[in-house]
Amino acid sequence: MEKIKLEFPDGTVKEFAKEITTEEIAKSISTSLAKKAVAGRLNGELIDYEFPLVEDGKIEIITKETAEGLRILWHTAALVLGAALQELYPTMNFGEVQETAHGFYLDTDNAQGQVAETDFEKITQKMKAIVKQNVPVKAAVLSQAAALKLVADDPYTTELIKETGKDQVLVHRLGDFVDVSQTPTLSQTSSIKVFQLLSVAGAYWKGASSNPMLQRVYGTAFFKQKELETELQRRQEARERDHRVIGNELDLFFVDPKVGAGLPYWMPKGATIRRTIERYIIDKEVSRGYEHVYTPVLANLDLYKQSGHWDHYREDMFPPMDMGDGEMLELRPMNCPSHIQIYNHHIRSYRDLPLRIAELGMMHRYEKSGALTGLSRVREMTLNDGHTFVAPDQIEEEFKQTLQLMVSVYADFDIKDYRFRLSYRDPKNTHKYFDDDEMWEKSQKMLKSAMDDLGLDYFEAEGEAAFYGPKLDVQTKTALGGEETLSTIQLDFLLPEKFDLHYIGADGEEHRPVMIHRGIVSTMERFTAYLTEIYKGAFPTWLAPQQVTIIPVKNELHEEYCKQLRDRLVAHQIRIEIDSRNEKMGYKVRQAQVNKVPYTLVVGDKEVAENGVSVRRYGEKQMTNATAAGFINEILADIESYSRPNK
Amino acid sequence: MEKIKLEFPDGTVKEFAKEITTEEIAKSISTSLAKKAVAGRLNGELIDYEFPLVEDGKIEIITKETAEGLRILWHTAALVLGAALQELYPTMNFGEVQETAHGFYLDTDNAQGQVAETDFEKITQKMKAIVKQNVPVKAAVLSQAAALKLVADDPYTTELIKETGKDQVLVHRLGDFVDVSQTPTLSQTSSIKVFQLLSVAGAYWKGASSNPMLQRVYGTAFFKQKELETELQRRQEARERDHRVIGNELDLFFVDPKVGAGLPYWMPKGATIRRTIERYIIDKEVSRGYEHVYTPVLANLDLYKQSGHWDHYREDMFPPMDMGDGEMLELRPMNCPSHIQIYNHHIRSYRDLPLRIAELGMMHRYEKSGALTGLSRVREMTLNDGHTFVAPDQIEEEFKQTLQLMVSVYADFDIKDYRFRLSYRDPKNTHKYFDDDEMWEKSQKMLKSAMDDLGLDYFEAEGEAAFYGPKLDVQTKTALGGEETLSTIQLDFLLPEKFDLHYIGADGEEHRPVMIHRGIVSTMERFTAYLTEIYKGAFPTWLAPQQVTIIPVKNELHEEYCKQLRDRLVAHQIRIEIDSRNEKMGYKVRQAQVNKVPYTLVVGDKEVAENGVSVRRYGEKQMTNATAAGFINEILADIESYSRPNK
Repeated sequence: MEKIKLEFPDGTVKEFAKEITTEEIAKSISTSLAKKAVAGRLNGELIDYEFPLVEDGKIEIITKETAEGLRILWHTAALVLGAALQELYPTMNFGEVQETAHGFYLDTDNAQGQVAETDFEKITQKMKAIVKQNVPVKAAVLSQAAALKLVADDPYTTELIKETGKDQVLVHRLGDFVDVSQTPTLSQTSSIKVFQLLSVAGAYWKGASSNPMLQRVYGTAFFKQKELETELQRRQEARERDHRVIGNELDLFFVDPKVGAGLPYWMPKGATIRRTIERYIIDKEVSRGYEHVYTPVLANLDLYKQSGHWDHYREDMFPPMDMGDGEMLELRPMNCPSHIQIYNHHIRSYRDLPLRIAELGMMHRYEKSGALTGLSRVREMTLNDGHTFVAPDQIEEEFKQTLQLMVSVYADFDIKDYRFRLSYRDPKNTHKYFDDDEMWEKSQKMLKSAMDDLGLDYFEAEGEAAFYGPKLDVQTKTALGGEETLSTIQLDFLLPEKFDLHYIGADGEEHRPVMIHRGIVSTMERFTAYLTEIYKGAFPTWLAPQQVTIIPVKNELHEEYCKQLRDRLVAHQIRIEIDSRNEKMGYKVRQAQVNKVPYTLVVGDKEVAENGVSVRRYGEKQMTNATAAGFINEILADIESYSRPNK
Repeated sequence: MEKIKLEFPDGTVKEFAKEITTEEIAKSISTSLAKKAVAGRLNGELIDYEFPLVEDGKIEIITKETAEGLRILWHTAALVLGAALQELYPTMNFGEVQETAHGFYLDTDNAQGQVAETDFEKITQKMKAIVKQNVPVKAAVLSQAAALKLVADDPYTTELIKETGKDQVLVHRLGDFVDVSQTPTLSQTSSIKVFQLLSVAGAYWKGASSNPMLQRVYGTAFFKQKELETELQRRQEARERDHRVIGNELDLFFVDPKVGAGLPYWMPKGATIRRTIERYIIDKEVSRGYEHVYTPVLANLDLYKQSGHWDHYREDMFPPMDMGDGEMLELRPMNCPSHIQIYNHHIRSYRDLPLRIAELGMMHRYEKSGALTGLSRVREMTLNDGHTFVAPDQIEEEFKQTLQLMVSVYADFDIKDYRFRLSYRDPKNTHKYFDDDEMWEKSQKMLKSAMDDLGLDYFEAEGEAAFYGPKLDVQTKTALGGEETLSTIQLDFLLPEKFDLHYIGADGEEHRPVMIHRGIVSTMERFTAYLTEIYKGAFPTWLAPQQVTIIPVKNELHEEYCKQLRDRLVAHQIRIEIDSRNEKMGYKVRQAQVNKVPYTLVVGDKEVAENGVSVRRYGEKQMTNATAAGFINEILADIESYSRPNK
């Protein structure tokens, strides 16, 4: 009998009969392991639990408790969904089946009538029946021809099979449903006890708007009921914070793919928030020695050939425009080459350094339409960008100052949940990076020493640096549980070479500056999305598009006083509206809360008589009384302090 | 003998022998006329003075005193220049010869060495010699083949001849110089007594950057010495005000055609001016009920097909970008369709009107590279744009409010030299306009009545309305003597049709709104160019990129006090720099004047002792003394009042 040699994670190597399955191996180790195991991983690749192993290699046993275990559960649940749908709708075709961060989806297309959330009850019953019968998933390796024959009527699955480009295709079948995604499944559908269908949304086949729109059915599944409940709670929370939902409710922005995918329109209220952020960050940066500029969104393609973007970043760039007179113009994917033009417009001296060039720079990046999301993934964006040109010995001090700016901005926006990641080059692969060992060594030390000096917590990540230099990223926790890079400080040794930048040193000689790319509040789009989610749409007073609602108890008696009050507030640039609609007062107060207006003022006889106001702050149930002047002082202090009165 | 019949401007018709010349006609009328006459105009077309007339028609005699007379003088002077150059540089080729608003130019190309301003003395002497000899200009109509033979070696003139597409070509020759521009000349070069060569500048052949760069020689000429002197003075004044010259001297902006023709880079100082204008106009508009938005610079090409721009405006638009997924994206040439998206995002009620949508909207327009000029003719521009959606009966009131806003803004910028032009449709050609007689009649009356109500001076221009509605333009006088439209208010009946806009009226029915396009301060580019010219670069304090220079008499003794003073001023957002360079005080004070800084503060022993400053205002020679607090109050009042303390 032929044998194979398998090495376990602890280093043990054992011999087994060829064609042994992961299941048999698990059982040979212990019953308790076999109970938890759901699949194997051979040489890094996941394999079905009952799949025969025919070669030597490193083996791992995947258990329920791991992320991979959950992924396999989700994939199997997607197959149960597919089998149920196939039974219910025999004419249905299927696109991708895919696991996500929190469950799975399956793309469907049914010419006889598309699936909708109202069908979920029926589908869930059918899925439960399949699970109850413990219908087995059958895995088999077929020739491509045989696999194609199996799905002859389904154009999407046919395309997926052809795309594999393989002669032999691993196919999973559950009932009449055929899955060609090569992902392992549980062998027992009876394990799919705790599952839930979640939603349906349109999704273009392959993410391209020129393709047909499929119906994407989302669901999730867990090994335990309690885990499902936790997930449903997280989803609820996420929905309440989703900037697309809030953006729509508060009328902040919209995107209309018919007019342009990934090209947001900022409605007046969203625009007010954005303008407030823009003015804030420009003023803050100017006060810290930045010089703000405006540079064109277009440049001759040659500029991006020289910078290297055209060679290395082309697939994220828009197509160039042929101007017909020999000029090819390109929408810029980044602002650095523009700021280099500013640097190079004059001969620079060491006295000019650090030279801090900043801009709210509009950029365009090509993203597949399927990847676009509200304000957080867009094709046109405006970055709070800055490039500082320093002498090499100024790196540490400039890095510190940038960090201090960053920390101060975070405090003003009340952002607390973030951590610093310091990224170095991979010490084992230094040849993969810009070639100047001394520069790397020195500058990495400088960054670390700056972090230590400032007493900031950070973690180090070897091999995470950019090709052109080490960097610091600020990883913020998103409201939806993910992590994203909001701010960054990146050293760049390369672009100064590519553009042959120099400055005249104190010695009268030419020297090469170092560039520091830095973004504090990211793009206006992403930052507004982020803030919307962390604030749940209840923007602090200084950012709120409408800061005050005034409600007259009786229009005919109290509106005049309200107008006087409004004029006094407007004189202080306070954003205010009088709600004099013919609605009940209680309704109007509730509306102001729904619209998350920071201050609601109610004005009746008493207030008019006393030249006062009744104030209700957002989120509070109690009204308090104040004089008009007292309220004005209060709200101005609120705005002035970025709504952190005790800072 | 054959006869022709000619009608004179006064209506008289006379018969003349065929082949009579304008010269002979002038002499037959009076000796004094013949002395002043320089050419004829037959049926609207200028003809040489000595050219035989062979057909009936309307004749005019062109005299020296007219604009056409001057134009013919300039053209002849250009030929004298050409003849002189041809003699001096036999290998020289020639491009266009052209009259301008103030003289002429001739494009030249000489592989043996290009002409330069240092050659002007030599060329002028040669021109004078030609004039002294009274070398005649010979006009002849040649076959195209014969004309081509004459200029065989000159690729540019060859191309110009071919471009005429005519079998018979009118050719003027002076010495060896051949002019094929079909413009008449004086017959006597002896009349070119008062002329001057002005400058040389590079100019692409045919204005396209893919073509060779020629050397364009500029000159001018007059009938009287005194007129030349007036023109030279105007030129001197124009140069002092030219925003490109000032923009370079004050480091406000630059354009580098290698990186992108017509795509300005705003240096920090220019950017500060622009940012101040932007914040000013946004705040002003918001206080007048405008809702500012941000909309994308790109949209699906279909949007501009629907708006009609693609059909009627395509040659001014950038080429569309094929996104590869079926979407064609276009850089917007105008913002109106974007604001229509904002309008259409909600169902609108009569209660929402007038709805005033505004934006600093970036747009792109294709201009030939030859037409691009500094900030005033560019390919990328940001317009202070606004679109108000009104019910038809709100036109007059909204028009008035917009005018009042305009007048108020002009006062803040101290713009005085402007006039209003009210443009109506041509009453004789109403079929050429949007088809709604009642709407035209009513709205034209409304505009006129609004102007009268506000007591504003205006002139009426029939036939100057847009196709889609009547309009008001504000014609400002430019520093260079021209007139340009800075602001505009245009009614539009058409776009609401094209996009099927409506609002729900008080009657519960759908009604069609009218759109009002309006721009107050034009594009940021054009307005900054305009302001630079009217202020001669001496921006009023509130706009000045640097508002204060502080000069310590002795750095070691007084710089510390200067820094304290700076911090006090910076706390009020005053833009300030300390000049502590190792230079003489007198030099630093002069530099501050050269840089047109509104306030120069000098600080010595006395100022430190008294906690004061010595203040020199821009343009004044005297210093005055003030306390530090007094100065701060003064400059804040200056800024607050837009530098019109007596407003």
